[in-house]
Amino acid sequence: MFSETITPRFSDTDALGHINNTMIPVWFEGARNPIFKIFTPDLNLESWPLILAKIEVNFEAQIYYGADIEIRTYISRIGGSSFDVYQELWQNSQRVSSGKAVMVNFDYKTQRSAKISDQIRAKLNQHLFTEA
Amino acid sequence: MFSETITPRFSDTDALGHINNTMIPVWFEGARNPIFKIFTPDLNLESWPLILAKIEVNFEAQIYYGADIEIRTYISRIGGSSFDVYQELWQNSQRVSSGKAVMVNFDYKTQRSAKISDQIRAKLNQHLFTEA
Amino acid sequence: MFSETITPRFSDTDALGHINNTMIPVWFEGARNPIFKIFTPDLNLESWPLILAKIEVNFEAQIYYGADIEIRTYISRIGGSSFDVYQELWQNSQRVSSGKAVMVNFDYKTQRSAKISDQIRAKLNQHLFTEA
Amino acid sequence: MFSETITPRFSDTDALGHINNTMIPVWFEGARNPIFKIFTPDLNLESWPLILAKIEVNFEAQIYYGADIEIRTYISRIGGSSFDVYQELWQNSQRVSSGKAVMVNFDYKTQRSAKISDQIRAKLNQHLFTEA
Repeated sequence: MFSETITPRFSDTDALGHINNTMIPVWFEGARNPIFKIFTPDLNLESWPLILAKIEVNFEAQIYYGADIEIRTYISRIGGSSFDVYQELWQNSQRVSSGKAVMVNFDYKTQRSAKISDQIRAKLNQHLFTEA
Repeated sequence: MFSETITPRFSDTDALGHINNTMIPVWFEGARNPIFKIFTPDLNLESWPLILAKIEVNFEAQIYYGADIEIRTYISRIGGSSFDVYQELWQNSQRVSSGKAVMVNFDYKTQRSAKISDQIRAKLNQHLFTEA
Repeated sequence: MFSETITPRFSDTDALGHINNTMIPVWFEGARNPIFKIFTPDLNLESWPLILAKIEVNFEAQIYYGADIEIRTYISRIGGSSFDVYQELWQNSQRVSSGKAVMVNFDYKTQRSAKISDQIRAKLNQHLFTEA
Repeated sequence: MFSETITPRFSDTDALGHINNTMIPVWFEGARNPIFKIFTPDLNLESWPLILAKIEVNFEAQIYYGADIEIRTYISRIGGSSFDVYQELWQNSQRVSSGKAVMVNFDYKTQRSAKISDQIRAKLNQHLFTEA
């Protein structure tokens, strides 16, 4: 599991007084940084090896400005060339959102998906989500 | 079907040279404006009657800066108090993204979901998605 | 003068019930699209000829969700290699924000500023701001 | 001086491969959180005592994805009811951006600016910017 703690910004709120839902995909993508580094340790933009195929986000409770948020990031599936990232937002000891991102290992040169190497697969395996 | 056409902004791009995925939920929420108006014609923030429960977004093709985008918005399910919004992004005559938002008719005063009225149900029905 | 009309999105609001100030630089950059096209008609990202040196934004009145906004874009100064873009936001017949962006004609290959050509200078001149 | 360190997100980049300029006002506003707390320690949105009158941002060097950024926040002027916040972005031991925000102590009930109290003035004074 990767854990990142962020402080919500005033600009993240909306007129209902809570964090706007469109910020959650931004936070989740930000918290996938360590997963990007597994594929490209120097975050090299010239040979970026990943594509995002799909996201799902569940909004489970209102998220507030004024209290820190922990983003927990897990791997929940590892396929041949794709894998799923499962993420949760926690605020004030409550899970307030969860989501999944389907990512594909991609070779921009050939414009085709690429098999996940055994080395990377082993690293992803260290962050597997296992329901309690 | 509701249709909105937008011009991508330079700030919507990312380092891979395309529109960043986190903009799509922003565009989709923006294009749900006419649906918000069905529930609150004057977009009254004091008695906002909707909650977003879940979103799903499929990234189907790269989206480019420099060409307009049409957002098509449909209703794909109407339940007792909740309903689904189905949306598509089209650029250069190609569908580049699609997504679903699960929305709940919500009474902020009682903090409970509320039955969708027959009047609103009839209006939603005018925008039903029917697969060809 | 270039004019663009946009519809504020719910995600543009903040907890005070108005449009958040951080959206204005986003809208202003979006409305500079036609100026980008004067320098690179096909918006070619591979040879982007502009750098942003400075922005100033004045927040003159509260900006509301639920009413369209007109963005007016002018050229207010043309120097040797740099120029100023002056912009205004109008909502409900009131000017609600104004701003300036200092842009530099830039050659990414040599990493140096470049003289604005006479041809481009003539086009910029067609959009000069002249105070009433 | 207040110091905050952030990790740029992939979604903060743009097609030129660097951090997009529109993110800087977002980061600067986020880093003004501790100043908001001087005025409203519990960040109470119901009686928010501040208005943003103006921002200026200087873009001094390209800002990169993949390296942390420190945001330094100072008070650079204290007037009767308004004050200036001066901020800097540092990345890889280089100052890459600086900016100023003019803020006004505001009473939303009377819709008028309000004198900054001596107590708050003393706290602001602890964070005064003094050029070396």
